[in-house]
Amino acid sequence: MAWNTNLRWRLPLACLLLQVAMVVLFGVFVRYDPDADASWWEEKKRRNISSDLENEFYYRYPSFQDVHVMVFVGFGFLMTFLQRYGFGALGFNFLLAAFGIQWALLMQGWFHHLDLQGRYILLGIENLINADFCVASVCVAFGAVLGKVSPIQLLIMTLFQVTLFTVNEYILLNILEVKDAGGSMTIHTFGAYFGLTVTYILYRHNLEQSKQRQSSVYHSDLFAMIGTLFLWMYWPSFNSAVSYHGDAQHRAAINTYCSLAASVLTSVALSSALHKKGKLDMPFLESRLRIQDTCGIHNLHGIPGVLGGIVGAVTVAFASPDIYAQPGFSKDVQTSRTQGKFQVFGLLLSLAMALMGGIIVGLILRLPFWGQAADENCFEDEVYWEVPEENSAGHVTEDPTLKPPALLIPSGAPALSAVLVP
Amino acid sequence: MAWNTNLRWRLPLACLLLQVAMVVLFGVFVRYDPDADASWWEEKKRRNISSDLENEFYYRYPSFQDVHVMVFVGFGFLMTFLQRYGFGALGFNFLLAAFGIQWALLMQGWFHHLDLQGRYILLGIENLINADFCVASVCVAFGAVLGKVSPIQLLIMTLFQVTLFTVNEYILLNILEVKDAGGSMTIHTFGAYFGLTVTYILYRHNLEQSKQRQSSVYHSDLFAMIGTLFLWMYWPSFNSAVSYHGDAQHRAAINTYCSLAASVLTSVALSSALHKKGKLDMPFLESRLRIQDTCGIHNLHGIPGVLGGIVGAVTVAFASPDIYAQPGFSKDVQTSRTQGKFQVFGLLLSLAMALMGGIIVGLILRLPFWGQAADENCFEDEVYWEVPEENSAGHVTEDPTLKPPALLIPSGAPALSAVLVP
Amino acid sequence: MAWNTNLRWRLPLACLLLQVAMVVLFGVFVRYDPDADASWWEEKKRRNISSDLENEFYYRYPSFQDVHVMVFVGFGFLMTFLQRYGFGALGFNFLLAAFGIQWALLMQGWFHHLDLQGRYILLGIENLINADFCVASVCVAFGAVLGKVSPIQLLIMTLFQVTLFTVNEYILLNILEVKDAGGSMTIHTFGAYFGLTVTYILYRHNLEQSKQRQSSVYHSDLFAMIGTLFLWMYWPSFNSAVSYHGDAQHRAAINTYCSLAASVLTSVALSSALHKKGKLDMPFLESRLRIQDTCGIHNLHGIPGVLGGIVGAVTVAFASPDIYAQPGFSKDVQTSRTQGKFQVFGLLLSLAMALMGGIIVGLILRLPFWGQAADENCFEDEVYWEVPEENSAGHVTEDPTLKPPALLIPSGAPALSAVLVP
Repeated sequence: MAWNTNLRWRLPLACLLLQVAMVVLFGVFVRYDPDADASWWEEKKRRNISSDLENEFYYRYPSFQDVHVMVFVGFGFLMTFLQRYGFGALGFNFLLAAFGIQWALLMQGWFHHLDLQGRYILLGIENLINADFCVASVCVAFGAVLGKVSPIQLLIMTLFQVTLFTVNEYILLNILEVKDAGGSMTIHTFGAYFGLTVTYILYRHNLEQSKQRQSSVYHSDLFAMIGTLFLWMYWPSFNSAVSYHGDAQHRAAINTYCSLAASVLTSVALSSALHKKGKLDMPFLESRLRIQDTCGIHNLHGIPGVLGGIVGAVTVAFASPDIYAQPGFSKDVQTSRTQGKFQVFGLLLSLAMALMGGIIVGLILRLPFWGQAADENCFEDEVYWEVPEENSAGHVTEDPTLKPPALLIPSGAPALSAVLVP
Repeated sequence: MAWNTNLRWRLPLACLLLQVAMVVLFGVFVRYDPDADASWWEEKKRRNISSDLENEFYYRYPSFQDVHVMVFVGFGFLMTFLQRYGFGALGFNFLLAAFGIQWALLMQGWFHHLDLQGRYILLGIENLINADFCVASVCVAFGAVLGKVSPIQLLIMTLFQVTLFTVNEYILLNILEVKDAGGSMTIHTFGAYFGLTVTYILYRHNLEQSKQRQSSVYHSDLFAMIGTLFLWMYWPSFNSAVSYHGDAQHRAAINTYCSLAASVLTSVALSSALHKKGKLDMPFLESRLRIQDTCGIHNLHGIPGVLGGIVGAVTVAFASPDIYAQPGFSKDVQTSRTQGKFQVFGLLLSLAMALMGGIIVGLILRLPFWGQAADENCFEDEVYWEVPEENSAGHVTEDPTLKPPALLIPSGAPALSAVLVP
Repeated sequence: MAWNTNLRWRLPLACLLLQVAMVVLFGVFVRYDPDADASWWEEKKRRNISSDLENEFYYRYPSFQDVHVMVFVGFGFLMTFLQRYGFGALGFNFLLAAFGIQWALLMQGWFHHLDLQGRYILLGIENLINADFCVASVCVAFGAVLGKVSPIQLLIMTLFQVTLFTVNEYILLNILEVKDAGGSMTIHTFGAYFGLTVTYILYRHNLEQSKQRQSSVYHSDLFAMIGTLFLWMYWPSFNSAVSYHGDAQHRAAINTYCSLAASVLTSVALSSALHKKGKLDMPFLESRLRIQDTCGIHNLHGIPGVLGGIVGAVTVAFASPDIYAQPGFSKDVQTSRTQGKFQVFGLLLSLAMALMGGIIVGLILRLPFWGQAADENCFEDEVYWEVPEENSAGHVTEDPTLKPPALLIPSGAPALSAVLVP
């Protein structure tokens, strides 16, 4: 079957349509949070706040930047392990995340904020972090379909997944009042099983035709280590970024730091024990499932997410009210046991949403006009990218034009602010 | 024409002379800001400050570190896209930035601080950020001459550009009282047109002799993505690092976050639409100007800088005083319209300074004894760097000495502090 | 001599034994610091603390994350310069640091905290930073033995070095009351001479058999620059992370920023002056000592550490009590001169501990059953890692399985917290 992968009109149109929609919706619905509003100095006077440091910005900004690095450098470079798909891994992750955070700001704003504050979504630093969290679940799902879908398919998947993520998150956090600090359920479980379902629906029967490109090369594994390490190092920020101020944020960072360190020794032990010569393998957690899960997200996010959800439920069920009885931790009417049950229910709901949503989105993505590549051209940057040609000696023989990476420096930042401020 | 590119005496001499001058000038002129002074605890008592958190350090340090990463990793790796100029891109950027921040601390100190506080420049965290900002404009200009100049020429360019930057910045911010939060005018416009003028003056008629090295290779583009992403991710910190405390800093970060996301979709749309097969191009913003702008900084910084300046002027001209009337935003006697005109004037002045300065510096750099390479040796690390030789199989055949990168761990940090503290 | 490098049972067993020991010891000895404890809101009420911002977390967290990046990305990538040892550099650094920080939390906790607070080690953000500091000295020592030891040897070295580091640190900081802000003595001097002694004891007479792998290739040097730059950029955070709140932290960051910039120009001058054609060399600080110091740590950490220690002693000896007389700086009964002598004594003690410890650990590591490689197989990832095979055209011919890097996402973070909270 011949596929048309020339996206010259479809991709620009999709991007521009989505971006214009975003700008219009931001203009209509989005305003600044009081902490980011120019009239904050008056507000402070009224509220008798003595210091600018009480601004939410200073509680959250360092964690926000770490999370931001995880989404763009962490997930981006993590997926550069394929020998000929580095541009796609970084570039498509960049594209879907950039669209996703805008759409997530709107979706999460409508669900979580609109009802409270009336007409407008009020943006503050916490919204930015939550948008990055939502997009992280799309990055997880991207891992399952890596190398097999077109950028247009990814934009469509992002549009739907962000929407479903927000609905699921709203039900879990606001209706069931489930605790999900690190996003075990909302981010990892939902993201992984959504992505796995989509890749299952998109099953390619002749994918072995591009199997020579499905492995890494020495330097592509080193690039992937950039992503791995930045994800690993900043996970304490990820897990603590939106915790309650003070001891809760502090505790989340300490727990994550210790758990992460323990996970390294365990992983090394398993990797060596599972290899017949005891060698370590950069990616030993390959998926054993026959569902073409490129990045092995079932083992990377699926199982850990479910485990995290279960352990969380058990921990909560046996948590002593003497320790955690401060305001905000749990509903007064709920005992710890009840809370534990709600946690389990939240986990099951996340799985159900992921499966149903994945089936619908998978079927939409199977339509033949999204510019997807043929089975023999998967995992190949050449399809969607202008790739520099190299001869065997490492010297370039063609295409001698200068090529710095595209970067639109946002010194025109006031542009959108003009939209934001009425 | 034969050039002597052996810098054995010229480069060490230039570096040591400049560094000795810096140490002497720091000893004479530089002291600590009260917030960094050991007697701060007494000062606090006097001023009735209850918490160490009120120290400027805690408002700015996270943003400072992000900006620092942008200057050294961001700009450094951004310019590693050339196949044989990675050492030069990273190493020369490192050298010019390390010299530039010291000289900028002095220049900006003399202009902005000396008049207020008498005999001494008083260093605090905000000075460090402003020095990094100043150097960012030199990094922008470096992009235009990348691969065509010697490290000595770069030190000379840095010396002059930092000086001119500071004069321009002083006139704009302190005399015209222009608002330039993200540095659209002082950093991007000034840096880009200064660099473009220099490269125009240094025009090389036979540069096509080294054109086979003017392109990227697959992995060099991935290295460049490290720079691109760290610049992109940390731009909210760049634009908010020296904003007023509280809501202004918060708002600058939010605006930049949203604008950046929007710019990605727009860039992807343009890149695909401009390619005949609709493919994406890592560096699609090539300069169409015939002025040998290696990194395409005209499209990367020049046009966005000018656009940012104009949009800023328009936004300010129509800003409602009801919203932005808090202390410090604008002079009481100026209406918004007047402020808008001053913004335009600031933009034009930045362009004029860049052109005039660029011509003078370009002419100085054309002198034949700065160790510049011949036209056929441009874009080649071999000229100034000891480069490991590789045979076709990727194995090294010569030079089997151990080679860790040079890193002088600054555990001797007290050394300069002995100079700083009288 | 034939070595058995198959670690299939030895490595998993070593990792699991150590990790189980850590979990048990954490369960018995470790609790949360009051600032990280769920009952902190009650504590605050009692202590009349008005703001969550007074939590130690907000003073230290940004610096902590920077230090964390230095340990894992900084030291990890710094050591990727060898052409065929990138996996080992990153992977073994990852492993030893992940074990080291857990062991350091316990050791430092027992020495510095247990005596004060009774039964338990109370963990807070400062403990995490100090654990990273301790591990940084192990990373320094790793540089000396890079490519010549097995992961089991590294775990043993880490176990002993962390122990000795903590004893040395306790004597210096708590008994001699030495000042060692940047860790010149405790981290750099101790780490470097410990590592040099170990590598001297492990001297390999036929190491030239693997000399063709002891050099870098072009791209491996670029990877090493990622490490170099992140170490360099975040050094202000390293040196200020555990300083007293306020002006001391501020001052440490400023001093380091300036010193670092000065060190770059000096390094470039020396590198060019020492090359016969005046070229720059990524790793010009090669060790001239005949002790097989792979990463040149004698010049990188040893000499700078000793210099830093001496300069610190001199600076302290002549420091004016008028400036530094605030509480906490020095014992009332000590004059500056006395403090200077104690500083020198601390330096000598660090050297002595490093030499003695290094001899003992070196002798233990010489035992023949730790899985070390033969002389001709040093500096080669193939020995301990599954490495993707590449043909000369850069295409993979074997092993076409999918290989994302192993990353256990710690969404199961509550797991250890269940142990931590009784």
